[in-house]
Amino acid sequence: MDFKNYIRDIDNFPSPGVGFKDITPLLQDKTAFQEAAKALLKMVDNQKIDKVVGMESRGFFYGPILASELKAGFVPVRKLGKLPAETVAQTYKLEYGTDTLEMHKDSVQKGDRILIHDDVLATGGTAAAVCQLVERLGGSIVQCNFLIELDFLKGIEKLNGYDVRSLLHY
Amino acid sequence: MDFKNYIRDIDNFPSPGVGFKDITPLLQDKTAFQEAAKALLKMVDNQKIDKVVGMESRGFFYGPILASELKAGFVPVRKLGKLPAETVAQTYKLEYGTDTLEMHKDSVQKGDRILIHDDVLATGGTAAAVCQLVERLGGSIVQCNFLIELDFLKGIEKLNGYDVRSLLHY
Repeated sequence: MDFKNYIRDIDNFPSPGVGFKDITPLLQDKTAFQEAAKALLKMVDNQKIDKVVGMESRGFFYGPILASELKAGFVPVRKLGKLPAETVAQTYKLEYGTDTLEMHKDSVQKGDRILIHDDVLATGGTAAAVCQLVERLGGSIVQCNFLIELDFLKGIEKLNGYDVRSLLHY
Repeated sequence: MDFKNYIRDIDNFPSPGVGFKDITPLLQDKTAFQEAAKALLKMVDNQKIDKVVGMESRGFFYGPILASELKAGFVPVRKLGKLPAETVAQTYKLEYGTDTLEMHKDSVQKGDRILIHDDVLATGGTAAAVCQLVERLGGSIVQCNFLIELDFLKGIEKLNGYDVRSLLHY
């Protein structure tokens, strides 16, 4: 199945000059949705995973399914102020300015085997910040797993030393 | 399994005087996470579902799993400006002010059998707005499915005529 047939290109979103990969046509097609889940799971290659860590909000589409299939727990990474209990926070650079992500302090235990999942690996800033958060909590990162990788943005360079797998490349 | 043991009460979140039901302990416990998914699925009772519609962001934790298990597609409902293609929008009243939700116009086809899922049914304003969006697109609502219902807020009164099921009641 060519999953790229279900990815819609949107020009100038969310801001002028940016090309956005819209995955909603993939999600809403029952066959493509299931098959992509299976393909993401296959990339994990039967490794033991304790928790899947997914990034707000589009990492929540496949992250929980991966957790369910791997018999793991699911941990959301959220933007500043969205998680209600005690958190650890990581601030990272954007092209203009900074952003901050949080995880609950009790969400990962020392030695937990972690699968990180997001929909798109772009510049890698978000994913690198999540890796830092997971490791500050004592988690061991088994794989960084993406639906889409925008190769030309070289996000993988910020994830040096991690096992990075992406289902679709542009 | 008593799922309520995995729901954390947070006082004064997201604003003073509000009591928040934090479901992240349930998500991050691998056994409780899987068992709650099975219990939510059981509420659907083998009805045919074409698409699961989930609300941003906490409806994305179990919505995609339900879609996957039901061999359905998944459709996200998002806050204004987050969806990149052509949308339908519904504005609804909050205690103070209003909020607006959007769905992609192509996300539901006429006659699609829809399961609506969110984590919490509170005052019912969000869920009622989503029902209106789905019906404007021609979808047929089979069930409104919630992890938690805050009975004392009487949200069910705004969902009169729908099959509303909630796993946990407070």
